[in-house]
Amino acid sequence: MTKPRNNTLLKALLRQPTKYTPVWLMRQAGRYLPEYNKTRARAGDFLSLCKNPDFATEVTMQPLARFPLDAAILFSDILTIPDAMGLGLYFAEGEGPKFERPLREEWEIRSLAMPDPAVHLNYVMDAVSQIRKTLDNQVPLIGFSGSPFTLACYMIEGCGGTDFRQIKTMLYQRPDLLHHILDINAKSVTAYLNAQIESGAQAVMIFDTWGGVLSHTAYQKFSLHYMTEILAGLKREHDGERVPSIIFTKGGGLWLEGIANSGCDAVGLDWTINISEARRRIGDKVALQGNLDPAILFSTPEVITSEAGKILEDYGNGNGHVFNLGHGISQFTPPEGAQSLVDAVHTLSKKYH
Amino acid sequence: MTKPRNNTLLKALLRQPTKYTPVWLMRQAGRYLPEYNKTRARAGDFLSLCKNPDFATEVTMQPLARFPLDAAILFSDILTIPDAMGLGLYFAEGEGPKFERPLREEWEIRSLAMPDPAVHLNYVMDAVSQIRKTLDNQVPLIGFSGSPFTLACYMIEGCGGTDFRQIKTMLYQRPDLLHHILDINAKSVTAYLNAQIESGAQAVMIFDTWGGVLSHTAYQKFSLHYMTEILAGLKREHDGERVPSIIFTKGGGLWLEGIANSGCDAVGLDWTINISEARRRIGDKVALQGNLDPAILFSTPEVITSEAGKILEDYGNGNGHVFNLGHGISQFTPPEGAQSLVDAVHTLSKKYH
Repeated sequence: MTKPRNNTLLKALLRQPTKYTPVWLMRQAGRYLPEYNKTRARAGDFLSLCKNPDFATEVTMQPLARFPLDAAILFSDILTIPDAMGLGLYFAEGEGPKFERPLREEWEIRSLAMPDPAVHLNYVMDAVSQIRKTLDNQVPLIGFSGSPFTLACYMIEGCGGTDFRQIKTMLYQRPDLLHHILDINAKSVTAYLNAQIESGAQAVMIFDTWGGVLSHTAYQKFSLHYMTEILAGLKREHDGERVPSIIFTKGGGLWLEGIANSGCDAVGLDWTINISEARRRIGDKVALQGNLDPAILFSTPEVITSEAGKILEDYGNGNGHVFNLGHGISQFTPPEGAQSLVDAVHTLSKKYH
Repeated sequence: MTKPRNNTLLKALLRQPTKYTPVWLMRQAGRYLPEYNKTRARAGDFLSLCKNPDFATEVTMQPLARFPLDAAILFSDILTIPDAMGLGLYFAEGEGPKFERPLREEWEIRSLAMPDPAVHLNYVMDAVSQIRKTLDNQVPLIGFSGSPFTLACYMIEGCGGTDFRQIKTMLYQRPDLLHHILDINAKSVTAYLNAQIESGAQAVMIFDTWGGVLSHTAYQKFSLHYMTEILAGLKREHDGERVPSIIFTKGGGLWLEGIANSGCDAVGLDWTINISEARRRIGDKVALQGNLDPAILFSTPEVITSEAGKILEDYGNGNGHVFNLGHGISQFTPPEGAQSLVDAVHTLSKKYH
């Protein structure tokens, strides 16, 4: 396998010179695209879309056909690992992901086992290979996983967006049990991301969606620590090419120095931090990915262009910036909003390179 | 009216010497207390509880009868102002607050009018007076309001905890309309808090529950700016006593310097920031209030004591710390957890004073 013809993303993640700032969008293959909804209707439901490599490839390619994005990202779910552990992932209509069998009893936790990516998650590896073939080295493919703590939230609470009462009760009352879960999750994510890399993922990202609900101390011990372990175990090269890694903790702006010390190549930022402040704090260590509020895409092309321009200006001259949203694109985004953003980033960023 | 016999809270808010660190709990009169649930059942529902000064006084006093807290806080809701504007506040069973008539059309926004606290919110002023009488100067009484931006979230979205799509769309597409709402809200909150002060509130707090969902730039313009205006218009003294003010933006840890420059006396902190870092950044300007994760109260007395001890140690020697949770106490908290916390703070804090 060779370098992508458009190699801007990988270079920016490694803080090498590029001619412009690359851009991709978290959840860029998603419900805001009518073609995605059509494929999903053919697949039947979200999980069937994830588990069928043909469908996963089709939706991964859709945003690239519309917009000149600088990366593809594997279409999958952050919760494939606990699903492969047997917890029974499902999606109730109009609600987020849930588990049929969340972890409730100590014996359930003690009998958790690491899934074998080649066996239990082969559908993901098949999708990665097939997407790489279909991409034909146009742009790089990003693989990803949920973070150990974020997976644990769903595994223990049974769903997302709760008050995190159950996992936090365990964290403070039975930290040994939570560490046991997180240790298995970290080993599982490491094997899973390495298998994605071997199947063709050219960069990897860890989504720590819920790490930001923790206290500063608990974040270090129960989320960042395990992401650091994963990074230490990741293949850094494949087929002679560096495979950069990105960590994104939503709400992690106060903890950037620790995140930048985790061994990652790039840090994802949500929109609560000024990217110039983030660059001042950690820009000598890592690349930065972010950080437009996705709600700005509901606006006019003029506003989108102006707001994207402010972020580019805040980052300033030089390498190491990957433009992205500060969180996944909303299902209510008009596709024209995404178009305006990608165009604005490509046009306005040239003068900083 | 004279100083409270236990004046520790007011002194700490003004960074004057105290013998120990005062403690109160956000939402200290609430569903975790069986006696609260009994009163609420007698009242019928939450709003009837707020709107009847006898009931409001009764539940305000309940946590003080159980725990040696250093402050009482008016029992009310953050959304009394938009309710008084005619938007129709209601509470669906098991859900958060909602409005029957959220702001949808420009003419609705243009016809918004500031409520007169003495007329439309007289039930709040009656509650403040009655609570002060019942307290009989035992501890000070804190009055409060939602922030202009937080009120606007509910007024525009119709409820809380959404994706903030409607208010953010307005913010980026029609900032003039949102500024119009926020300006009326700021004037209304100023008049409302001043009326509470005249009725007997001895400190006031502005709850900016949702400011943390904004980008760093939008936060300054659409939330902090209006809180600064309120603070400039607040009575700083009543009956010869200083009336300290507290601002709390949940998720505002990155913006502390700006918040501390707003003219407030104290800044509330959630649990994502180490209080020693917050003190280093803004402790020369303001007192700090916080910042235990309320989920720690689900734990054992030993864990609660140890975690409270860490915060006291992180704050360190000297004045200017009011112990509190980093957000409201959960309805699932065992009252014994609150007891352990109050005892731990009183006992362990003496050595720092």
